[in-house]
Amino acid sequence: MADFKALLKEIRGYKADLAGKDFLLTWEKTVDELAQILAIADALRDLRVRNISAKVFKSGLGISLFRDNSTRTRFSFASACNLLGLEVQDLDEGKSQIAHGETVRETANMISFMADVIGIRDDMFLGAGNAYMREVGEALDEGNAKGVLEQRPRIVNLQCDIDHPTQAMADLGWLKEYFGGLGNLKGKKIAMTWAYSPSYGKPLSVPQGIIGLMTRFGMQVDLAYPEGYSLIPDVVDLAGKQAKETGGSFRVVNSMDEAFKDADIVYPKSWAPYAVMGKRTELLKNNDHDGLKALEKECLANNAKYKNWECTEEKMKLTKGGKALYMHCLPADISGVSCKEGEVAGSVFDRYRIETYKEAGYKPYIIAAMILTSRFKDVAGLLEKLESKGKVRVKGE
Amino acid sequence: MADFKALLKEIRGYKADLAGKDFLLTWEKTVDELAQILAIADALRDLRVRNISAKVFKSGLGISLFRDNSTRTRFSFASACNLLGLEVQDLDEGKSQIAHGETVRETANMISFMADVIGIRDDMFLGAGNAYMREVGEALDEGNAKGVLEQRPRIVNLQCDIDHPTQAMADLGWLKEYFGGLGNLKGKKIAMTWAYSPSYGKPLSVPQGIIGLMTRFGMQVDLAYPEGYSLIPDVVDLAGKQAKETGGSFRVVNSMDEAFKDADIVYPKSWAPYAVMGKRTELLKNNDHDGLKALEKECLANNAKYKNWECTEEKMKLTKGGKALYMHCLPADISGVSCKEGEVAGSVFDRYRIETYKEAGYKPYIIAAMILTSRFKDVAGLLEKLESKGKVRVKGE
Amino acid sequence: MADFKALLKEIRGYKADLAGKDFLLTWEKTVDELAQILAIADALRDLRVRNISAKVFKSGLGISLFRDNSTRTRFSFASACNLLGLEVQDLDEGKSQIAHGETVRETANMISFMADVIGIRDDMFLGAGNAYMREVGEALDEGNAKGVLEQRPRIVNLQCDIDHPTQAMADLGWLKEYFGGLGNLKGKKIAMTWAYSPSYGKPLSVPQGIIGLMTRFGMQVDLAYPEGYSLIPDVVDLAGKQAKETGGSFRVVNSMDEAFKDADIVYPKSWAPYAVMGKRTELLKNNDHDGLKALEKECLANNAKYKNWECTEEKMKLTKGGKALYMHCLPADISGVSCKEGEVAGSVFDRYRIETYKEAGYKPYIIAAMILTSRFKDVAGLLEKLESKGKVRVKGE
Repeated sequence: MADFKALLKEIRGYKADLAGKDFLLTWEKTVDELAQILAIADALRDLRVRNISAKVFKSGLGISLFRDNSTRTRFSFASACNLLGLEVQDLDEGKSQIAHGETVRETANMISFMADVIGIRDDMFLGAGNAYMREVGEALDEGNAKGVLEQRPRIVNLQCDIDHPTQAMADLGWLKEYFGGLGNLKGKKIAMTWAYSPSYGKPLSVPQGIIGLMTRFGMQVDLAYPEGYSLIPDVVDLAGKQAKETGGSFRVVNSMDEAFKDADIVYPKSWAPYAVMGKRTELLKNNDHDGLKALEKECLANNAKYKNWECTEEKMKLTKGGKALYMHCLPADISGVSCKEGEVAGSVFDRYRIETYKEAGYKPYIIAAMILTSRFKDVAGLLEKLESKGKVRVKGE
Repeated sequence: MADFKALLKEIRGYKADLAGKDFLLTWEKTVDELAQILAIADALRDLRVRNISAKVFKSGLGISLFRDNSTRTRFSFASACNLLGLEVQDLDEGKSQIAHGETVRETANMISFMADVIGIRDDMFLGAGNAYMREVGEALDEGNAKGVLEQRPRIVNLQCDIDHPTQAMADLGWLKEYFGGLGNLKGKKIAMTWAYSPSYGKPLSVPQGIIGLMTRFGMQVDLAYPEGYSLIPDVVDLAGKQAKETGGSFRVVNSMDEAFKDADIVYPKSWAPYAVMGKRTELLKNNDHDGLKALEKECLANNAKYKNWECTEEKMKLTKGGKALYMHCLPADISGVSCKEGEVAGSVFDRYRIETYKEAGYKPYIIAAMILTSRFKDVAGLLEKLESKGKVRVKGE
Repeated sequence: MADFKALLKEIRGYKADLAGKDFLLTWEKTVDELAQILAIADALRDLRVRNISAKVFKSGLGISLFRDNSTRTRFSFASACNLLGLEVQDLDEGKSQIAHGETVRETANMISFMADVIGIRDDMFLGAGNAYMREVGEALDEGNAKGVLEQRPRIVNLQCDIDHPTQAMADLGWLKEYFGGLGNLKGKKIAMTWAYSPSYGKPLSVPQGIIGLMTRFGMQVDLAYPEGYSLIPDVVDLAGKQAKETGGSFRVVNSMDEAFKDADIVYPKSWAPYAVMGKRTELLKNNDHDGLKALEKECLANNAKYKNWECTEEKMKLTKGGKALYMHCLPADISGVSCKEGEVAGSVFDRYRIETYKEAGYKPYIIAAMILTSRFKDVAGLLEKLESKGKVRVKGE
């Protein structure tokens, strides 16, 4: 990791305009802005390692609004809030409801009287999760403009139907560390591939987040899946367009082997087909439990045809020097460990286990950096003051 | 809002003796004490707006004991605690149990070793909620007197079977702002009326809280409901007595139109009849699920006779200049929005939507003011010091 | 309680090596280390009483991982964390699962990126709870060694299948106060006896914790239970061995009267037989609900044979001068109060009610002392600084 002064210089070197804005999709931010967030995350980690407090909020709430179960992201959000001095307050809404209009407007205002940030996870409904976040954002704009809210809390997307920006950015931060700098990612090949899992209905946001982000940095991105397991078409189109602009490449293949061939990085992970997720959304909206069961059965039967989409030792040998970096957002479905047959062979996972933990370890700092940039214009100045004051996080150490 | 110095002067001008006391019913407090709490709430908001920390507790717990679901009040309590530096710890007890004796005494002590305030919501059982709070209070008195507890945490009633003081006081704070001062409320007519809702079993505490509080300030309070939807007789009697003492008026009418006529303020809201709530309490105590279902069915059928008790545009025209202020504790049952037929027409609600949000926005500050006054003798002095020290809540702003 | 300076001297006088270690079993710590923790707990309480903040963490998380329901221990852990400046983050895992291998390793790392302490309660499965804590500990060691975790959070056992160290240590702290010093416990007779309860499946960790701890301090420990209600043999053996080493005594008797005879302290409490807990663990592992129901029925029927194992006034007369100190970890099954027939007669419990609350009151401070000693080498120096700086916990008091 670069030293603190160098990080401050790097942060100041980026042209960024993140203050006063929500973080909903990585492709709504410039490359400079994304790079700045990574550098701020590194600076925050450096402060923490040196036992220097990064508490910029003396009080304030971080609202966590999870419309789907979560342990890892929930803890990452809580960690980020705690690092900065915000206390987490959970809003537990019913899982399966899609809220609209007045319900959203009212809730958004009611939870925000003393909120500085709202983290939302809403990935159950295709076409609804990101839209919901925007609706909350509009309600907050109005509430703030009309004097209901004294401040406009910022929204951080903790996973929606389209993107999973805190995950993708953590992944990028890890790649930056692993390959020694963002610049070194240029030309590197990453295989974002579907993999078999005995479970069903996993969201599309991770693969979409990866192809939507990695194509920004000149990487060669292969998206691979069995026929029928496509993603949201708009995001796929976007990835192609972005790859062209940055001198990278993007292609869709229907072979895991082809994607793995000469890859520097592999990211094998299960997801449900776009079409299935669409049907599922309709069935969920109509509370059609029989329909949902039938769809699940059909989908699992279809999955079972592709059990050979597993990240095995044989497949790993296809990668560059047989030594591609294995990535996963965790928890992985590990064959013979967490399930009989799954996304990855036990021996492969075990070899990269610690690496996947380190990958995950970026998330709290990424979220904290997103909170800081969404709120403060001069984050470098703020960090500089924190460091020079040097208040210790833990006394007596 | 008055400026900070003026607020301090106002706070000091009231004769109040709130320190060391729980806040259980507004009518156990003097008019001066209630007015002081409003002024303190305003001062706290002023500090917050000016980014001055009001953290008087460096550590300490605010216990939230909710025996009924809640989002708004839970968030308001959490916000108030956070503002003052207390961390919220939730106690999730079973919903339907009525605790007595040793269970209450023991729990009260076990949760209070490091508690500074306990917020309790217990509105399910007529005759039990407020009584429960008092039993907790006695257990705390004993625990403190006998050396179990080093401090005696104060109780704030976050809604019981009799009163909803944080709501009613937030409503009063909002009226003070809207009409430009508490003195201006004298002679203003407020219509606290029942309204149709497709749901069942809503507590009586809001209408009781309103008639119990607004009659203290010389207002003309009309309580209106269809025959049979009466409130707890003692509270109704009290409202009448108080109105006489303060030069206001109080009457019960069985016509929404009559109540709305020339009203300055309307507060149309559904509740269950007193007699039904009494029966329900018995059935709940006996876990008589069939009886509860039958009662619900009967009550909903009865409600349906009064669908015309809706706050429509026509009804609004009856009010003073057709421009009465519409109030609601939220969430409202809005016709054509959150339900087919409900308490208020969509167009009426929409016109006052932002106003109802502002009304709700008082609650966190009211609760914080209740916590401060229950704990500190010289709150004005405390606020003055906070302001002069001027520690920022958010750094770098 | 000794004065603060004397406590610092006492703390410094003990030979202890607790820093960098988890607290999993009292018998893994030396007598000096246990005594030091008690003294630190007293010092923390003294600071709190004098309104001096003991916040040594400016930020940081205390993870609470409860695999069984809990109110008292959960609140004690939350209080301890709050006292020291840590924010509690709950991890709610499914109750009945036994996690192993990768699941444990991954979870342990994912929740620990910003954790300073992890409190775990896992008492459902004989042979699994304490083992689980050690597995978490090993995962944290590895995560820290390999650069995943910047710090290695310490584990505090909040109750497992073998020991309940925070309870037993709180009990010891209370005995120290009650009898005027640890030295005065030498030769005192404590009767840890089974007692009848209408409920089933209570863990063995409390009686095991008591015989495992009190035999360290030269006490005469009688363990009494009806035939068949034995504890884990290893712990019983250990108690005998320890008693010999410290000049105390330990014996197992099958008569409540015999144990109560001339006792200075009685601790009558229900538990399930070791053999039953073993069977139950197997049934739970296999999700055998019918088997579990049959076992419960059988066990309750067996319990019912021993309804005379109740701490009555008659039994209390057998104790030294009829005035033994009654202890319980709460909540007790009180005959005629919380159940028809239970562990203790209403009049006996009532006479010692406040004493049991005081006993419980030690737990938050014991946990806080365990956190401090697990983390800091020179706790006395840390406490001395806190006192000399004298930052107030509550302003304006």
